[in-house]
Amino acid sequence: MTSVLNTIFRQCRSVHSTQVIQRSLSLSARCLTAKIIDGTAIAKTIKDEVKAEIDEIKAAGKIPPHLSVILVGENPASKTYIKNKFKAAEYTGITSELINLPIDTTEEELLKLINKLNNDDNVHGLLVQLPVPEHITEKRVMNSVAPHKDVDGFHTLNVGCFCVDEKAFIPATPAGVMEMLRRTGIETFGKNAVVCGRSKNVGMPIAMLLHADGIYETEAGDATTTICHRYTPPEQLRVFTKTADIIVVATGIPGLIKADMIKEGCTIIDVGINRVKDEKTGKMKMVGDVDFEGVKEKAGYITPVPGGVGPMTVAMLMKNTLQAYKKEVNFDHYKSSLGLS
Amino acid sequence: MTSVLNTIFRQCRSVHSTQVIQRSLSLSARCLTAKIIDGTAIAKTIKDEVKAEIDEIKAAGKIPPHLSVILVGENPASKTYIKNKFKAAEYTGITSELINLPIDTTEEELLKLINKLNNDDNVHGLLVQLPVPEHITEKRVMNSVAPHKDVDGFHTLNVGCFCVDEKAFIPATPAGVMEMLRRTGIETFGKNAVVCGRSKNVGMPIAMLLHADGIYETEAGDATTTICHRYTPPEQLRVFTKTADIIVVATGIPGLIKADMIKEGCTIIDVGINRVKDEKTGKMKMVGDVDFEGVKEKAGYITPVPGGVGPMTVAMLMKNTLQAYKKEVNFDHYKSSLGLS
Repeated sequence: MTSVLNTIFRQCRSVHSTQVIQRSLSLSARCLTAKIIDGTAIAKTIKDEVKAEIDEIKAAGKIPPHLSVILVGENPASKTYIKNKFKAAEYTGITSELINLPIDTTEEELLKLINKLNNDDNVHGLLVQLPVPEHITEKRVMNSVAPHKDVDGFHTLNVGCFCVDEKAFIPATPAGVMEMLRRTGIETFGKNAVVCGRSKNVGMPIAMLLHADGIYETEAGDATTTICHRYTPPEQLRVFTKTADIIVVATGIPGLIKADMIKEGCTIIDVGINRVKDEKTGKMKMVGDVDFEGVKEKAGYITPVPGGVGPMTVAMLMKNTLQAYKKEVNFDHYKSSLGLS
Repeated sequence: MTSVLNTIFRQCRSVHSTQVIQRSLSLSARCLTAKIIDGTAIAKTIKDEVKAEIDEIKAAGKIPPHLSVILVGENPASKTYIKNKFKAAEYTGITSELINLPIDTTEEELLKLINKLNNDDNVHGLLVQLPVPEHITEKRVMNSVAPHKDVDGFHTLNVGCFCVDEKAFIPATPAGVMEMLRRTGIETFGKNAVVCGRSKNVGMPIAMLLHADGIYETEAGDATTTICHRYTPPEQLRVFTKTADIIVVATGIPGLIKADMIKEGCTIIDVGINRVKDEKTGKMKMVGDVDFEGVKEKAGYITPVPGGVGPMTVAMLMKNTLQAYKKEVNFDHYKSSLGLS
């Protein structure tokens, strides 16, 4: 019996990180059940690294990084997201402030406030919690935050920079996805990656980071990368997901990726956050874009929802804020062409 | 016999454009031979459109668009490229000037000249012919050209803009590839596209334009898009090219794409320009990245080299220069975040 178990264990792929935990219920099933990538644990490690640096900063008598968040209106979901960010900020030692403007704030008033914070040396990271009310143009707001304080990575100059593999603030979710892959020891070099979803703050940046050359500043993944989206016919989506060693799903469609669409042993990163009714309990629950119960029996690695990409996003925002404080990302070399020098 | 021929003709796919010419030698082989996409003819149409607009501008008594080109050193290939650009400029009515600096020009001197031309209202389009000598940092030069005069589309703010589907100067080669597909009537929506090569001025922008949402300012292609590159294993490259309805090849590897790697009836856009020795004549000749003779028997559409993408690139540069003149691409809304207002 022992030798049979040993054989089974030898067949199992090795765990590359202590943060990959195995949740299978029976010993004999282990080889067939995906390793769960514990986003909460990886996020904690990152926050601890940020905290350690900030502890040193404070020990040297300097002021710590400061993150300002602007919220227009009273959207409850936005308030929850901000609460999570501030909790992580407090943990790491980043000081933070919420500037909650009334719902009827005009675009001009908002831009004026952003401009004031852009010029305030005590503010290192600045973000406007999305969505903004309809009378305000989201894109204009995103592009009003000074790029060197744009810890969300939404300013077009930041987008351009990471698209040409230059150091930039990478949006927290794509940055979190790449960090999860790296810290779990999942190889991307020369592998097939499929990204489902092409949004400009999640799918597109992930595809950029997965396919590009790893020797440059973004430390990209060198994977052959396919971008699937709403106009990919279902039968073609299946063709591509079946070729994939890594699938990143960010579509907002619960249960889109099913077990019969994937290759055995592949890695599944589920960026989806969907609230659906639990058929058994009748209560609302949070699920991703992947049919977790089915897929986890076939995949090699999988992220859960909740507890996967979500906590990573908050941790990467803290890392971006520390980078902003350390002035690791700057755009001074663009000044001459933009009429600034 | 007539009815057999009619049957053959009915089986042939319809020609969507008068600019697609058929070069097969025998009637009965027509269905099996790709339609050649005549880049020279499509480029002429575009240049004629640009010329017509400039004729109107001049008829209204206004000065026409002006393109300044800086060349550092005496690279013969660069001189040929510039000559082709100036020939097209003259044809369309764009005035142009070459500023040929000595090879030992310092980076500071070059940047000073760029800055002067950035501020010269009589210069509408400005480009520095690449490559620059080794003692000059190419990226710094590219990002010194004012983005609203950057008709090459190499400035990072331009890159960011087209990556978020905003109107921008799209680099001439990617713009030319998309224009060829459109004017030939080749559907991209919901199709499978494979881009071989991930360079920042060709492969990457083409992948962005092929996959993104067509409803925005870049009129992108809505294709499911796979980016293959040097680290895509050959057997995997074949898996992807075989799924493709459209293959764009920009790798610099002569004959990379062979007939047995493609799906019958697909469209092949060959961006490669390689000088190789002709085995029969012993003379140097220009070839693309596709095994043209083999592939043309199986593809639906194919671009030749020379006479395919090459002329399109020059034509799109003229179109970009006209756009710059008409101030259709501007970056004023970025000024506040960059400390300009």
